[in-house]
Formats: sequence, C-alpha cells, structure tokens
Amino acid sequence: MSSKASSVLEVMNFLNEVAADYPRAVSFASGRPAETLFRDDLWTRGLPKFLEHYAARLGTDIDFASRQLAQYGRTAGLVNDIIATQLNRDESLNVEPGQIVVTTGCQEAISLCIQALCPSASDIVLVRSPTYIGITGAAHGSRIQLEAIDEPVGVAFSQALEAAIVAAKARGLHPRALYITPDFDNPTGSVLELEERRALLSTCGQHHVVVLEDNPYGMFCYEGIRLPTLFALDSDGVVVYLGTYSKTICPALRVGCAVVPKSLFGSIADSKRLLDDLIRRKSFVTVNTSQFNQALAGGLLLLEDCSLDRFAKEASVYYRRNRDRLISALGRVFSGLGDQLTWNRPRGGFFLTVALPFSFGREHAMECAQDFDVLLMPMSFFTMDGSRLDTVRVAFSNLDPKDVELGVERFSRYVQRRFER
Amino acid sequence: MSSKASSVLEVMNFLNEVAADYPRAVSFASGRPAETLFRDDLWTRGLPKFLEHYAARLGTDIDFASRQLAQYGRTAGLVNDIIATQLNRDESLNVEPGQIVVTTGCQEAISLCIQALCPSASDIVLVRSPTYIGITGAAHGSRIQLEAIDEPVGVAFSQALEAAIVAAKARGLHPRALYITPDFDNPTGSVLELEERRALLSTCGQHHVVVLEDNPYGMFCYEGIRLPTLFALDSDGVVVYLGTYSKTICPALRVGCAVVPKSLFGSIADSKRLLDDLIRRKSFVTVNTSQFNQALAGGLLLLEDCSLDRFAKEASVYYRRNRDRLISALGRVFSGLGDQLTWNRPRGGFFLTVALPFSFGREHAMECAQDFDVLLMPMSFFTMDGSRLDTVRVAFSNLDPKDVELGVERFSRYVQRRFER
Repeated sequence: MSSKASSVLEVMNFLNEVAADYPRAVSFASGRPAETLFRDDLWTRGLPKFLEHYAARLGTDIDFASRQLAQYGRTAGLVNDIIATQLNRDESLNVEPGQIVVTTGCQEAISLCIQALCPSASDIVLVRSPTYIGITGAAHGSRIQLEAIDEPVGVAFSQALEAAIVAAKARGLHPRALYITPDFDNPTGSVLELEERRALLSTCGQHHVVVLEDNPYGMFCYEGIRLPTLFALDSDGVVVYLGTYSKTICPALRVGCAVVPKSLFGSIADSKRLLDDLIRRKSFVTVNTSQFNQALAGGLLLLEDCSLDRFAKEASVYYRRNRDRLISALGRVFSGLGDQLTWNRPRGGFFLTVALPFSFGREHAMECAQDFDVLLMPMSFFTMDGSRLDTVRVAFSNLDPKDVELGVERFSRYVQRRFER
Repeated sequence: MSSKASSVLEVMNFLNEVAADYPRAVSFASGRPAETLFRDDLWTRGLPKFLEHYAARLGTDIDFASRQLAQYGRTAGLVNDIIATQLNRDESLNVEPGQIVVTTGCQEAISLCIQALCPSASDIVLVRSPTYIGITGAAHGSRIQLEAIDEPVGVAFSQALEAAIVAAKARGLHPRALYITPDFDNPTGSVLELEERRALLSTCGQHHVVVLEDNPYGMFCYEGIRLPTLFALDSDGVVVYLGTYSKTICPALRVGCAVVPKSLFGSIADSKRLLDDLIRRKSFVTVNTSQFNQALAGGLLLLEDCSLDRFAKEASVYYRRNRDRLISALGRVFSGLGDQLTWNRPRGGFFLTVALPFSFGREHAMECAQDFDVLLMPMSFFTMDGSRLDTVRVAFSNLDPKDVELGVERFSRYVQRRFER
C-alpha cells in the first residue's frame, strides 16, 4: 500500500501545490473540463424547470416544492428517473430508475462500490496500471487492496485479466471487482476494442468479478463510431455502471451515479442487496446527494429533453480542436527526432500520452515547471509500481487553444536540454 | 457490531419506509428542521452576493468567477474564511480558516474524523448510549468499533468516561476519540453542564482521547444562558469541532465542517497531520464540497454579516413554541397518570424524551403508526445494546404547530390501550 499511497499524494500535491506555485505556466497537468463550455443558465433556467417538474410530481405549488427541495431527501436520489432516461438516450442503457443510486460525484460511487464489494481483507480490486488516481485513492482510504493487471505487449486484455484473476486466487486473494474506463481512459486515452469488451465480460462473468465501468469521457468522441459500453453489452449482470455529470455539465454539481445491473450474476436478490448496501453506506457518509445539485442537473437535463448529446457534440468540437493542435504542434516541434519521441492519437477524451527517450519523474516535472513554465504529469504517478518512467500524460481539455503551441514549444526546450545533458 | 448495525438499519427503515407508508400520520419521528423557516433567497440574493465577493477575491469579473465556481475546487474548501468568522461571531470560537475542512454535510466530517483517528483495529471511539445514529452508522461503515460509556445514575459524566477509558485499555483497546453532542443532544435533548465540560476536557487531555464535538443544535437555545462549547473551553488541543448548516440554513446545502485545534495535545505538527489526513481522505470520497453549495452558504452568511444569530433567534421562537405546546399537551393529556409517564424539559434543540411505564420497541412504534396515525421513535433504536426500551424520542422540530396537540392526543389513546391490556 505504501508506494500506492505515496503516488496518490504525489499527484494531489502536484495538481494542487505545484500548479499553484506556477500560475503563469501552461498546464497540461489538469484534466478538468473547459470552463468556457459551462452552461450559465443552471440557476436561471435549469432550477425553475426542475421545480416546475417537481411541483407537478408532488402535486403542490412551486413554493412548497422548493421548500421540500431544501430538505434532506431520499438517500438513493431525487432525479433517478431523469438520469435513467438520459442514460437510455445517450448511452443506450436499458435502465430503470430503481437501479440507480445518485452519488456526490462519481468519486463517491467508486468509493461506495469497492467498499460494498470488498468486505473482507482478502477481497481485492483489479485495475490496469497506469490507472485513474481516484480508484487508487478510494482503495487506500478504505484499506482495500488493489492488484495491477500485468499487460504484456501482444497479449489480449482478457487473457491478461484471466491470468491476474488466477494468480490472485492462487495467493488466497478474492478478486471481487475490476475497475476500468473502456472509453478514452484517464491517463492513457486508450479505448478497449469491441472484441476485448466481449471477452472481458465473459471472463468476469465466469469468475464472478464485478466490472466497475467508469465512463466520464464516452460522450467526447472525436473520430470513428462510439463503441457500446460494457453495461450495454452485458447480458449476465456483471457490470455496475459509474456515471458523472462533472465533464458534461460541470464539476461543481458533484452529481454522479452508480447503476447496478437488473440481476447480479443472474440473481435479482443479489442485485437488490448490492443496491441496498450502496444506499446504506452512502447514508453513513453523505446522507443524501444535495437536492439542490440534483435539481440543477435534473433541470438542465429536462431543458435538453434528457439528452446531453447536443452539448457533447459542441464540446467535442472544442476538445478535438485542442487535440489536433496538440498533435500538429508535437509533430512540428519534434519532427527532427524521428521516432525517439512518440505519442498516441486518442479517438476521444481529455488525454494524450508521449513516450520519451529518457526518464521523466517528479523531479523532471518540477524542472519543467520551474525553468520552462510548463506543467506535465509523469505517467509513473499513475502506475501501481512507479513504472512507465519514460512517459508523460498530456491533458488537453482545460487549456486555452492558443496556449497549446506555446506549451509544446516550452516542453521542446526542456527536451532539448535533456538531450544536451 | 451486528446489533449496532441492525439498529442503524432499523432507524433508517423507520424514517424512510414506515414514515412513507403513513403519510397522514402526525410525525414526532423526524428531527428535520422546519421548512417554513428556510430562506427563499439563497439563489436570488445569496449566490450573487458570494459571486461578487469571489470575483473581488480573484480580481476578475463576475462571469469569470462564476465559471471558476462551477469547476472542481480546493479539497479543504472555498469559504473557510467566512465560516471561521461565523464560528467566531456565533460560537466565540477562536478559529483560523486554515483549521477548517469544509465537508459535504457534517456526516462526512464525522466519518472522516473517526477514520483518521482510528487507523488500527484496536482503535475505538467512545460514545454515550443512546447516541446519534450518524456516528453509529459511520463507525459501522468504516468498521470501527464503538464502545458505550456506562453512565450509572448519580455518577458524574467525566468519572463514567474515565472508567470507560480505563476499562477499554485494560482490554487492549485504544480509545482514540469521544463523540459527543454537549448541547441539546440528539436523541436525549440533554445538556452537559459547565463543570462536566471542564472535567471531560481534563480527562480526555490526560488520556489523549480526541473529543469530537458535534454541535448542530447549540444555536437553538430556549431558556437560560448558552454554555461555552467544548472547543471554546479547550486549552490543551483536545477538541475537533464539527459544524453544520443543515439546521441553521437548510439540509439540501450539504455543507458542514470539521475544525481541528491549533495544536493537537500541544503539538502543532500533529494538528497539521490530522488536518492533512482529513483533507486527503475527503479527496478520496467526495473530491471537494460542491462549490455551488459553498457559494450559497457563503453568500447567505455574507448577507447576514457572517452571523446566524438573527435567524437562530427567530427559529428558536418557532421551535420553543412547539416545545411548549408539546409539554403542555403532555401535561394535560397524561395528568391523570401521576408520575407513571415523565418527560424532560429540554432547554433547546429538537428533541424531548418521554419515559413510559411499559416497553416501547419497534413493534409498538409500528402499532402506533398503523392504528393511531402517530409516529414516535423508540429510544432503544439509539442505544448500543437495545436498552432504554421504556423511553421514546419525541422530535418536535418538523411539525406543524397545530398538529402537536393532535399527535399527543393520538399517542395518549395508544397509551390507554397499553394500560387496558
């Protein structure tokens, strides 16, 4: 645990403190959504829209409804029906409101799910490495062991997963869940292909490993066809879907959700038990998700006919342009280096990765910040063992488009210095 | 743990499901604040007020500030300075903004504190019995052991506490925290007197037991002089103060806080370590408290010159009237029974307790609901061992004043039936 814990601290420290120390820096560090895309009518139009809906639901006037809204509320949530419709329209998920727990951001959903699924000390969660820092932190906070899936080049993901499950079992551990972001993963930007999705579901179904499918970036698709989510492909009750409105509406909402399958590995009773356990655990931490925030999210969804598709398409134009500028700038600046520096071309999401011909850890990131006014995150911050020292994560979502070239320029001067050493 | 866990479930089930099954019932079950007291200008005046303040703080225009507000934010909080001022003005707490973590309701603060203070399996939290169900739930959710303090009649609280600490240590356990609501306790309505407060601080200081002082009701004082909080009396760095705006503004805000002492048992470094640990743990569960909600709370406080005193005085008129009507009705209806039925006269808060000459458990509460359309909570729901079967908790906060007499009337008919059995 200690190396993982320290890596969580490192990321947090880097994002909060290092970034604050270099306010003039061009930051490729933060994967925040772009503020320019935020709606400015949440209060002026979203809230009244929801209050109207809520008053009709209660059969009261608006004043009564708004006072009820300001109260405590059902732990499972207030806008589950609206979320179910949105997930149906935007993600083709066949979901009933009763399958949903509305959470205080997706992070709470992650934390509740692993706690509910891993009650014993020998229960573990499987993750890819590198992985999203939120699962690492949640596991650390709940003292739940994570196990990285070893993915040798050329081996299919489901095979690597199968091997990880078998190896863990041989050591007396019980893999209860797999945490994964199949679409435009943070930090790698990668996509799990359709056949791998099917194979993953089969493997997890066989071993009764619950898949925690985190999907913050799925709607930000820049090329090709969106693949169906694991939840949509799942016919065996393997997948718990984790949703968030932080990227599609805004982070200050702190509204996310967990969606349990209709039957968990074929058992309706087990699914109900999991849902009840999530709700109970949530009541011990946050009581219920702020009804104000649920009303803002719900109202905006009602204004948009329960679909974020129109917004996501607009936002994708913005983010895709940043990605394209980034890729062009990288090509232009590093063209003389042949294949010493390589990068991927993410089909969506907020992140791109650059592989370097030298190691790039915390001290190098600090050097970039201090001497070149550009912030990047070492990929080793996100791995379970501090490996991947030759790679950086380049976030392009929360960046003024005109700063992309400048940032790449600055980074290239740092690369130049490294070559000269 | 199992009996405690089941009692948490019982309370939740009773509040959520039983209450929903009897919508026409007069409910003395819920300790929610009265909706009629909620402000209706949080959005129209509070939010603009905070945005103005925030823009000035950032040195930007309102539009920029409102987009920043919609982002993720500092895990420790956005309105710590405003909260510090309010705690200073309303509670005479000498607090710096840097001592505060803003939490998603006080429940999150409770949960984070016990996790941070009890990392080992032998670390326990001491509680009174009966106690607030939120600490029982939080401990259950985090698999932390609670130990009830045995309080024999006639023994001073600090002596009972000392005995509990010594007994726990003799069993190889480490009491790390005491959870207590000194002012108008939920569920008993009782107040810890000044001398007992001082003695408690001395005992806890001696044994290095952190006091978690929960103070949701302190501002609702109906007679006599408010006593200083434990935090205000503490000169040895013993107390972590837990605050909430759920009762003074409204629950849907989900804004509370934990305030660590300047030095923990004399160590500034230990205090800083505790604060950092709370912040880190919070980031793993809710990332940061919704900046929208912090803005609503902060804006309202700014409108009120950082004091809730005016509001609390108004609200206290309302709640005191309910208490007085309740006490008169109890006196009128049960006057023929001599001292077979007795009740306390809480000096503040939301709860009163009635001692009965017969047992009153879940099945009796159900009978009251079903046959007499009145909801009351058995005190045994709140005890660690299911004892106090002869007492009920009567919440009078969220009740239409005109329903008080009707509810007592209905309950008296139930009591009549019990006597006839």
